[in-house]
Amino acid sequence: ARSIDLAVIPGDGIGPEVVAEGLKVLTAVLPRDVKLETTAYDLGAARWHATGETLPDADLGRLKGHDAILLGAIGDPSVPSGVLERGLLLKLRFAFDHYVNLRPSRLFPNTATPLAGRPDIDFVVVREGTEGPYVGNGGSMRTGTPAEVATEVSINTAYGVERVVRDAFERAAARPARKLTLVHKNNVLVHAGHLWKNTVDRVGAEYPQVTTDYLHVDAATIFFVTQPERFDVIVTDNLFGDILTDLAAAVTGGIGLAASGNINPTGTYPSMFEPVHGSAPDIAGTGKADPTATVLSVALLLRHLGHEAEAARVEDAVTADLAERDAATPRTTVETGDALARRVAR
Amino acid sequence: ARSIDLAVIPGDGIGPEVVAEGLKVLTAVLPRDVKLETTAYDLGAARWHATGETLPDADLGRLKGHDAILLGAIGDPSVPSGVLERGLLLKLRFAFDHYVNLRPSRLFPNTATPLAGRPDIDFVVVREGTEGPYVGNGGSMRTGTPAEVATEVSINTAYGVERVVRDAFERAAARPARKLTLVHKNNVLVHAGHLWKNTVDRVGAEYPQVTTDYLHVDAATIFFVTQPERFDVIVTDNLFGDILTDLAAAVTGGIGLAASGNINPTGTYPSMFEPVHGSAPDIAGTGKADPTATVLSVALLLRHLGHEAEAARVEDAVTADLAERDAATPRTTVETGDALARRVAR
Ligand SMILES: CC(C)[C@H](C(=O)O)[C@@H](O)C(=O)O
Ligand SMILES: CC(C)[C@H](C(=O)O)[C@@H](O)C(=O)O
Repeated sequence: ARSIDLAVIPGDGIGPEVVAEGLKVLTAVLPRDVKLETTAYDLGAARWHATGETLPDADLGRLKGHDAILLGAIGDPSVPSGVLERGLLLKLRFAFDHYVNLRPSRLFPNTATPLAGRPDIDFVVVREGTEGPYVGNGGSMRTGTPAEVATEVSINTAYGVERVVRDAFERAAARPARKLTLVHKNNVLVHAGHLWKNTVDRVGAEYPQVTTDYLHVDAATIFFVTQPERFDVIVTDNLFGDILTDLAAAVTGGIGLAASGNINPTGTYPSMFEPVHGSAPDIAGTGKADPTATVLSVALLLRHLGHEAEAARVEDAVTADLAERDAATPRTTVETGDALARRVAR
Repeated sequence: ARSIDLAVIPGDGIGPEVVAEGLKVLTAVLPRDVKLETTAYDLGAARWHATGETLPDADLGRLKGHDAILLGAIGDPSVPSGVLERGLLLKLRFAFDHYVNLRPSRLFPNTATPLAGRPDIDFVVVREGTEGPYVGNGGSMRTGTPAEVATEVSINTAYGVERVVRDAFERAAARPARKLTLVHKNNVLVHAGHLWKNTVDRVGAEYPQVTTDYLHVDAATIFFVTQPERFDVIVTDNLFGDILTDLAAAVTGGIGLAASGNINPTGTYPSMFEPVHGSAPDIAGTGKADPTATVLSVALLLRHLGHEAEAARVEDAVTADLAERDAATPRTTVETGDALARRVAR
């Protein structure tokens, strides 16, 4: 597309700081003839404190009109847990049918990993984004009494599982290793697990070139730290994907580098790109936040909008920049953004 | 107690091999005047293939009469996933109200960890054992059709959460660091999360000497690999506990060393002790299985039955043995059992 109409949700904590650098790099990498238009949305803790609103229908309606959304981070200790997560972040993912939550993990050269031996890590988690235990179908009765019962219902549909499994097979087929690992817990969560396993087996028959594999989620965490090089594409449900991708980020240099895309592959709704990290209120305003995860999320955004060459350019810039980083002389958020913008500029 | 009436469920794969060594060490460590009586139960894949039974009421009734249960491992690829897990292992945990699933994690000297820098790890996970997503209250409709819906219901009660939280506070209060971390995902699973968080806050008021802390499960996995020394006692739900304890085992030298106790603290039912690892059919019969996790589970069993001195003796023997192990010359299952039995013998 020769123009990008981008919605920007800076959000809370370090969100605005990292988003500013992401936009800087985006502006620098785009060819001159691609027009970038951005619209900022005031959503998050400040808005909630001021008006009590998390994501009113009017904002949702306007957001729907954009080509894509760039989001910084949502959440603040001053807001009760769950209010912004359920009322804003998850509401966006569900309303815009972001059924593919794409989270690549790669151990870049010269980055710190807690793992001895620096294994060769390069995999991508395709996390389901609209079902599972995230549907919000729980409740509680006799709340606050000794007889309270609280439930959370994981809902999984053939429709929802099949579409994300197909997406994961497509991605696996396009990668050199052509391997897809389903992660679930089908020996305990037998109903949901059966649906996931059967779907992978059935759809897998259409992809004979892709090797498939199954791991229980507990065993998968073991391999994430002992043998992460065994993974290529992982497909998993919303909750297991949440857990696994934070662990993946930790073993590949930390949450400061982990990018994600909340993708609606049909294009009916705008897809949303965000760093995996949170709002980190403890370092907000200090200039210490690393904007790299946001910049890598911008690369995913570019790829999603068809700007493959620019996406690769951003990723190459990050790789080159990381290779030259010196842990002893940390840079500010703006300095890192500037360095990356310089590298991608034509 | 001057006698131990022990039920033994060797189970599948490497189960019988490691259980034999566990019993060897148990026999060697017990004072002469403590009478040990063991009864083996044929439960697991072989029984299921032969009779179609997983855990008939008759066996359950007889098991109930013992002081404790030692279990090797359950599960075999020849049995559909979930049949033995739900029909035998989880049935035991639920029928005998094993609401405290105790899983200590310690990085012993001279053991391999995938973590660089060998952090000082010594924490214990108190995993809830009778509720949460493990209750088996899911189902599916239109199964096998494109319109299938599969659900899994996590059920959490004030009764069930409070008793395990109290147990965790008691354990934290008895440890030098006196710190309790609740792990949940209360920003998404708001109903169950609210019950857990409120319970910890309320019960915590009775334990002013214990510092409490809260982490989302995704963030907890990060700290397990970047800062595991920050943990002392962790209390969490059944599913998060399952995932976290495999990860904990991986960072503390592997699943071959991870012990567990399925405890019914009221003593109404026999508690059950088992290694965290599975049946490992790939190495069954090769003599390669490490029986140490089972031996450490025997230590938990001894402590539970009031034989504290003997429990410590077994743990000290394992520590001393590990310190002398030479990764270059691996021992057989029996050799390791013999070495540990020699060390604990009077
Ligand atoms: C903030 C929270 C709702 C969110 C999630 O659980 O999906 C976050 O952890 C993530 O992974 O994007
Ligand atoms: C085998 C399985 C049912 C079991 C569980 O999930 O609890 C195992 O993983 C464990 O941790 O003991």
